[in-house]
Amino acid sequence: MSRLGVRVSGNLTAMPAPLWDSAFLRACRGEATSHTPVWLMRQAGRYMPHYRAIRARSSFLSLCKDPALSAEVAIHARAYLGVDAAIVFSDILVVLEALGLPLEFTAGDGPKLTAPLREGAHVAALRASSAAAADLDYVHRTVALTVAGLPGHIPCIGFCGGPFTLASYAIEGGSSRHFTLTKTFMYREPAAWAELMERLVQTLAAHLTLQIRAGATCVQIFESWGGALNRADFARYVAPALRSLVALLPEGVPVIAFAAGAGHLQELIAGCGADVLGVDSTGELDAAFASRQRHPGLSAVQGNLDPCLLLATPERLLEGAAAVLAEAAGRPGHIFNLGHGVLKETDPEQARRLVAFVQETSRDGRHGRSG
Amino acid sequence: MSRLGVRVSGNLTAMPAPLWDSAFLRACRGEATSHTPVWLMRQAGRYMPHYRAIRARSSFLSLCKDPALSAEVAIHARAYLGVDAAIVFSDILVVLEALGLPLEFTAGDGPKLTAPLREGAHVAALRASSAAAADLDYVHRTVALTVAGLPGHIPCIGFCGGPFTLASYAIEGGSSRHFTLTKTFMYREPAAWAELMERLVQTLAAHLTLQIRAGATCVQIFESWGGALNRADFARYVAPALRSLVALLPEGVPVIAFAAGAGHLQELIAGCGADVLGVDSTGELDAAFASRQRHPGLSAVQGNLDPCLLLATPERLLEGAAAVLAEAAGRPGHIFNLGHGVLKETDPEQARRLVAFVQETSRDGRHGRSG
Repeated sequence: MSRLGVRVSGNLTAMPAPLWDSAFLRACRGEATSHTPVWLMRQAGRYMPHYRAIRARSSFLSLCKDPALSAEVAIHARAYLGVDAAIVFSDILVVLEALGLPLEFTAGDGPKLTAPLREGAHVAALRASSAAAADLDYVHRTVALTVAGLPGHIPCIGFCGGPFTLASYAIEGGSSRHFTLTKTFMYREPAAWAELMERLVQTLAAHLTLQIRAGATCVQIFESWGGALNRADFARYVAPALRSLVALLPEGVPVIAFAAGAGHLQELIAGCGADVLGVDSTGELDAAFASRQRHPGLSAVQGNLDPCLLLATPERLLEGAAAVLAEAAGRPGHIFNLGHGVLKETDPEQARRLVAFVQETSRDGRHGRSG
Repeated sequence: MSRLGVRVSGNLTAMPAPLWDSAFLRACRGEATSHTPVWLMRQAGRYMPHYRAIRARSSFLSLCKDPALSAEVAIHARAYLGVDAAIVFSDILVVLEALGLPLEFTAGDGPKLTAPLREGAHVAALRASSAAAADLDYVHRTVALTVAGLPGHIPCIGFCGGPFTLASYAIEGGSSRHFTLTKTFMYREPAAWAELMERLVQTLAAHLTLQIRAGATCVQIFESWGGALNRADFARYVAPALRSLVALLPEGVPVIAFAAGAGHLQELIAGCGADVLGVDSTGELDAAFASRQRHPGLSAVQGNLDPCLLLATPERLLEGAAAVLAEAAGRPGHIFNLGHGVLKETDPEQARRLVAFVQETSRDGRHGRSG
């Protein structure tokens, strides 16, 4: 059953018609649209001169904690690209900081959790979920400011990291190639792992709910590193947490579930209760559409152009984009996106070219669009 | 049609019966065996005290270029673990060095190609394939010494990197997270990319053939980073090269094709002409067995325990191993292996425990084995 039957926004006020009828939210509900809506994961980021200018004056974490500046970054990227949705500017790791794990971003080296979680006892020592979510107030204010600054017909997507992805950062202390420490913890301390998943689920549910109350009209769960697990382990150690998280979110606001490098997990993620299945470049749009038959709550499919194609020639880029549209074949409930975040080497002009191409080509109905 | 009908070893002499009838080579041909043969990718490496003692006296590259020492490493690991096959001790990147790209291994940082291949013109400047393969004589002497030092019934596996994997190291200059430079080269310079694939195929075919002449009775192609590509790109830019490479190898010697993080490419790799499909942890053994129906040349399936399970408790490790055996369900043509290489953090005793468990449990027929 769809979670999306209720015509309310998360704060339980009726959603304005231009927003409710936006191509993006219609597509999230699996409804026909005048064109295929498009946005790009990490659409506001280092590849944008506007963003780099702001970062020249502010560290990454200071920027995340400055609602006005974060809103400006998100709003500018949305307008520059002409995409059909904005996404809140924030980082998935601020949740770990709020849970009591000190967080640093060092230039070049990426994120560092300087006191990683290595033992079961560390899980019990995490701060309470409600306190953590309250501490993330600056994100919720960012949402409100972003929504206030966007055109009335443009939805704002809130987000969080997925439970496995956050657990992996907490345990490894940063990014990882093999997720050795994370999997070892998961295999050796299943009870502590389950407790960690539960703590993360409660915190993430509160954090997303507060983003929705602040005006986010869709949320995406970035279970980015989930693809590091095989199917059996994902089903056993992570999928239950993902299902709990989705179940805790208010109805009426679409939830997108995304994992990278996770073609092999596509069916499991399709079954987590989310409304939209985010498909990465290793996944298959066609199979994702077919998943809707087996999961009646699943309304839409998002993806999945390889972000490296933005570094190709314009001709090769648009050939790739056309192939994605052709695979979606104009079926209602397709949101065009990349298979992963925009790479820092990307020419912003190429990203803008891609967005215009997707909107115009799909509006022409050249790809069999019905609506 | 199977490539394995000819009862010869690669040097065109009749293969001794104990070797021909070894569990490993029987399984490669899809024949029933008394137990499920097992070996472990990167079974000789940093996790072994014997190996670390040798490396204390010798750099990685000096070790690779010392046939006697390399043979000792491979033979020791084989005997310590009791596995059903040895694999030559070498590195996939020595081929790039032989092609004229200077190679360094620095402690902690991994491999560095100090003059990476960044333009089409660099491809034309590579050394000739025949000269490169001849320069790899030290690997071929390693094969001969390894074979000479192994018990007569233990096969020795030769190997090389796959064309995409080697191209990615050549272009990135080392390992990579997103393969941005590699894909950009591939998308922007398709003619130079095709020429690079062809040069690699010729060199790898010569290198593998010389390993076979030196006594390798099976070869594995490690297309380790192939999983970074989506299905369409792998089919277009890499699969033809992989097929050409397999087609150039002498008949009668099984070829294993393996890629990591490549569950989504499993069917494409199954169709490259190899005799054995190496399945990584993101792949599915059951689907791999089913691929044999569509690819009559495909005789066997290898894999696919998550190497992180070697870091779990013995009980959890053996539970995982039993699940792999249960999925294979005793079908002839299963070679037990990890889904990727042994991790450096592994306790060698755990690896030995795994090997004994696989051999004993499958011999008992507890998993429905027929033969």
